[in-house]
Amino acid sequence: MKAIVFDTELKYLKNYPVPEPRPNEGLVKVLMAGICNTDLEITKGYMGFKGVLGHEFVGLVEKVNGPDQQLVGQRVVGEINCYCGTCDYCQKGMKTHCPNRLTLGIMNKDGAFAEYLTLPVSNLWAVPPQLTDEVAVFVEPLAAAFEILEQIHLTPTNRVLVLGDGKLGLLCAFVLNRIGLEVTLSGNHAEKLRLASEQGIVTIHRTDLKPAKGYDVVIEATGSAAGFEIAAQCVRPRGIIVLKSTMAAGKEMNLTPLVIDEITLFGSRCGPFGPALRALSKGILPLTQMITGIYRPEQWKEAFAKAGERGTLKIQFDFR
Amino acid sequence: MKAIVFDTELKYLKNYPVPEPRPNEGLVKVLMAGICNTDLEITKGYMGFKGVLGHEFVGLVEKVNGPDQQLVGQRVVGEINCYCGTCDYCQKGMKTHCPNRLTLGIMNKDGAFAEYLTLPVSNLWAVPPQLTDEVAVFVEPLAAAFEILEQIHLTPTNRVLVLGDGKLGLLCAFVLNRIGLEVTLSGNHAEKLRLASEQGIVTIHRTDLKPAKGYDVVIEATGSAAGFEIAAQCVRPRGIIVLKSTMAAGKEMNLTPLVIDEITLFGSRCGPFGPALRALSKGILPLTQMITGIYRPEQWKEAFAKAGERGTLKIQFDFR
Repeated sequence: MKAIVFDTELKYLKNYPVPEPRPNEGLVKVLMAGICNTDLEITKGYMGFKGVLGHEFVGLVEKVNGPDQQLVGQRVVGEINCYCGTCDYCQKGMKTHCPNRLTLGIMNKDGAFAEYLTLPVSNLWAVPPQLTDEVAVFVEPLAAAFEILEQIHLTPTNRVLVLGDGKLGLLCAFVLNRIGLEVTLSGNHAEKLRLASEQGIVTIHRTDLKPAKGYDVVIEATGSAAGFEIAAQCVRPRGIIVLKSTMAAGKEMNLTPLVIDEITLFGSRCGPFGPALRALSKGILPLTQMITGIYRPEQWKEAFAKAGERGTLKIQFDFR
Repeated sequence: MKAIVFDTELKYLKNYPVPEPRPNEGLVKVLMAGICNTDLEITKGYMGFKGVLGHEFVGLVEKVNGPDQQLVGQRVVGEINCYCGTCDYCQKGMKTHCPNRLTLGIMNKDGAFAEYLTLPVSNLWAVPPQLTDEVAVFVEPLAAAFEILEQIHLTPTNRVLVLGDGKLGLLCAFVLNRIGLEVTLSGNHAEKLRLASEQGIVTIHRTDLKPAKGYDVVIEATGSAAGFEIAAQCVRPRGIIVLKSTMAAGKEMNLTPLVIDEITLFGSRCGPFGPALRALSKGILPLTQMITGIYRPEQWKEAFAKAGERGTLKIQFDFR
């Protein structure tokens, strides 16, 4: 099958072997897949991953190795962490932190930039018919935005700042905006800020952002190591910073401001698919406007180049 | 009066002016004062402070500029943050975060390494007679250890690791040990670890500490920028790191492990004096064993040199 593989460098292979579903796994024919910032970081060495890249997808279940044959033929999205189900973390419901987990396209498991992938059937979620393939690909990153609400109790009077008008920053702003908070999005790109502004989100250009410690909660989604320091300058004493960015490189920084202002910082990763699917089904998020380009897998070089450009939002692969 | 002053360099002055208490301030004749790691950091440039150093002390109220004359003659310790009382933070009870605050010996207010200091009477706490001056000096740093319990809900089954067997690390371990948790203290000094071990605290030499993500809560009190990374390696997924160290220098670091493991990090600074005074009054903490040396103010050079040596615990000045 066609596959986009990272193995010290990014490659496109035409004859990568089709994966074989293990017991209780489904074989999924990929329809579309999205490039995430994490994919770009992996090509810089993040996680030391080797294999088929990609973890945002929508596909059709072609085969199930197990009793759940009713899934065959269904259009699905999939949670990316494959957990053991038996360790302490799984038993306590923290499946995304299972120490034995494999993670689609990120850790020890081939991903979604290929004609086929496999995932445990318990990871698969049927996609409602009203969602297009293009929109369904957003379920995974949108779930990551919902994770913020799983972790912290935001109240209607909280002043929230989202740092970064990239894909994840926009999705976080959209999700928080839906619950009636005053959300401010800071970024560098007029076009992206406009998308948020049209949703009633307050927008501010990065250079106009004052380090005034005025926000109760700051979501750091810049994808850059510098974002943390800006967050620490904008959050009020005893406020909350949520870190969403994952990156390969570090930076010299001093955590003392967190101590002086007694900031609480939450690391935040993968989130719940159910709320994301419900939100998308309501059709109120301007996700199609977030798609900068759709490429055939053969155009992998152009697609990755475009995904790495400043100003690009979502790049998708069309495997249909 | 005699005073130990930092002003680009550390100096001992014999004729520093005695401070004049402002309205509702008391003039306190210092009996004893302790050197904190923060004082050492200030001499490296932390906070850009200039003036009389020192914020851990016990003293006698000699004069009150205001109605609270009953305080005159009392032996007191003092909270170090002088707040405005009228801003939003003060109104919400977050007085230690008042943006208009002065902080004794740390920010815009002369400190305790002098014969006299001034503090608002509302900052002063009478010291029970059974406490020696030497032990009373520990109220301020012990209160900082109690701040952890103000911030997070530790349960009896939590496995807690304290990183750093310095002054603050030991006090944190003592405080957490008192509430019945299994506390492990990691450090480099056999003598300090023995102090903790005698209290029933599990001790482990730093080099034997495994980065096994086994602790629910890790208290970072190493006073070094490297401590944070060790904390991140020792805390379990979805666990808590409490940062107690403040320092002048930064370090290259990558916060991505906090995102992957969804760690919650709490910055933690000054704490409540009431619980600290109650704990000391019970006489069960081995604080006198934590005093490495007591110096006359004239011996300031030796005192600071000793305070900066590896293996030193508390150094106190005797102004009596």
